Amino acid sequence: MHSRQILQKTIDEAFASAGFSYDPPELYEPIEYALRNSGKRLRPLLVLMGCDLFGGDIREALHPAMAMEIFHNFTLLHDDIMDQAPLRRGKETVHKKYDINRAILSGDTMFVLAYEYIAKTNLTILPTILELFNNTARMVCEGQQYDMNFETAVQVTHDDYIKMIRLKTAVLLACSLKTGAIIAGAPPEETEKIYRFGENLGLAFQLQDDWLDVFGNVSKFGKEIGGDIITGKKTFLFLKAFELAREDTLIRLTRNFYDKEIPGPEKVKRITEIYHQLKVDELIRIEIDSYIDKSFNWLDKISTGENRKCVLRELALEVKLREK
Amino acid sequence: MHSRQILQKTIDEAFASAGFSYDPPELYEPIEYALRNSGKRLRPLLVLMGCDLFGGDIREALHPAMAMEIFHNFTLLHDDIMDQAPLRRGKETVHKKYDINRAILSGDTMFVLAYEYIAKTNLTILPTILELFNNTARMVCEGQQYDMNFETAVQVTHDDYIKMIRLKTAVLLACSLKTGAIIAGAPPEETEKIYRFGENLGLAFQLQDDWLDVFGNVSKFGKEIGGDIITGKKTFLFLKAFELAREDTLIRLTRNFYDKEIPGPEKVKRITEIYHQLKVDELIRIEIDSYIDKSFNWLDKISTGENRKCVLRELALEVKLREK
Repeated sequence: MHSRQILQKTIDEAFASAGFSYDPPELYEPIEYALRNSGKRLRPLLVLMGCDLFGGDIREALHPAMAMEIFHNFTLLHDDIMDQAPLRRGKETVHKKYDINRAILSGDTMFVLAYEYIAKTNLTILPTILELFNNTARMVCEGQQYDMNFETAVQVTHDDYIKMIRLKTAVLLACSLKTGAIIAGAPPEETEKIYRFGENLGLAFQLQDDWLDVFGNVSKFGKEIGGDIITGKKTFLFLKAFELAREDTLIRLTRNFYDKEIPGPEKVKRITEIYHQLKVDELIRIEIDSYIDKSFNWLDKISTGENRKCVLRELALEVKLREK
Repeated sequence: MHSRQILQKTIDEAFASAGFSYDPPELYEPIEYALRNSGKRLRPLLVLMGCDLFGGDIREALHPAMAMEIFHNFTLLHDDIMDQAPLRRGKETVHKKYDINRAILSGDTMFVLAYEYIAKTNLTILPTILELFNNTARMVCEGQQYDMNFETAVQVTHDDYIKMIRLKTAVLLACSLKTGAIIAGAPPEETEKIYRFGENLGLAFQLQDDWLDVFGNVSKFGKEIGGDIITGKKTFLFLKAFELAREDTLIRLTRNFYDKEIPGPEKVKRITEIYHQLKVDELIRIEIDSYIDKSFNWLDKISTGENRKCVLRELALEVKLREK
């Protein structure tokens, strides 16, 4: 059994020793740049945790763990092009630093690299891992499309939103944990439970992201505060406010949200006020807590000893308290 | 042993019966559109031919064959965004018909679909096929980057150019044939020979494409004639002309080629005249013939009966005579 710190160190060292400087440099420099600007490396951590939970050898999980991180960064790279995002983790996005063409193509190449790391999985379980990874990758693409659809959709329900973030964010966290569990040789009913733990954790994770975007601390968050409001992203906060607002408040909400003439900071101020007024800042906390509770329920059902689950329980609590 | 016609029909039927209409439609419509606008379907044909050459069961090769076609169409989709190409096979490109974001994302999804078809390979050979496919996919990305680099490169040598088209085009043809051969259970030394056959065939195929772009018939070719000249693509023809031109001719060639003020048709006319004057239209034919000869040399070395090779020999002759 390994501590969180050891698992994190294992991953960081694996990325530090893995070079991606091949020819042509125009293709691989953006990849090095994207993977060096590392973030939390949550997904590979989950692969190792899923493996460790069931007593597997984490060294066997390291390559698929890296695959998840490379895949995740590939999706960020392409998403940032689509969203025309200038910053990622406090630094210029790849298409801003280089150009859109290099961002498209180095993203594609990262996708291949992810599969190369998947292909290093032990042969006996490779087909299972590959199928899980394929399914997940497709769902992530579908989630991104739903997210883009929401930009112009007249009505987006709460269920639509949860479905979108489940596909776009939660399934990859779930897949990461399940991958680790499969590598450890856990039986299917157990790998399913850890998947469901991860799925609920992922939903809480994304909702916390929505919360941080408006109520976070800019120096810790690494992105501009209110970015979702400025770009007109229909997050949980907006959708809940839209559902609850009546008469004058509804008019104020929609006018301010859709008016492209209002300067960014002013728009963020006005919308945030309405969020407070409608208490959606409290409602999102309740929603986050409910998904964390659900994730704990799934964790409880897993048949390993309680001490093995501690690191995951701690991680789940961190997700809902995280500030970046 | 199967005729070319039967193999082609098998592939066309497989694509006709495979639907890609999933949710959300915004994501899958462009995929249906791209895969319906089918072209020659040369790569899946090569998978089946590679399998048939060594007496394999072509039904076992059908899924990987489809993977190659889907992957190829994914690369076209992203390449067309990067090249800002308006037409593909006589129809609007995906990013023109829909938009760039949907083209990026549906391309990514096609890439996953390709891997889903790869994953349907017989388990005993899946790791081998997956590794070959991964290597190939990465080389294709590298080839596209070299191609983009050439746009701004001051000097591109003949060898640089051949390396680029080997990566961008030839290796996927080679990979397709080798995949079929592996499925048929051919030994490594034989799968290597068919790979080399395919690689040389692929080089001839791309050079024929360069030739067609200038000297082809617009109604058959499906793209505008001289497109490479108008977009300033450094093809074999331009590079050879640049190598051979002296004094006045060199000045005329470079001035006309790089001058963005000259209207497209006039530019095509002037550059084509220089190509004729320097006989690069003849030199490219010699180059194409030499790669076809090399491919035949590799085919000769393969230890199957001559009658099994006929369909590939015919295909190679078609490549150098093709008009579209």
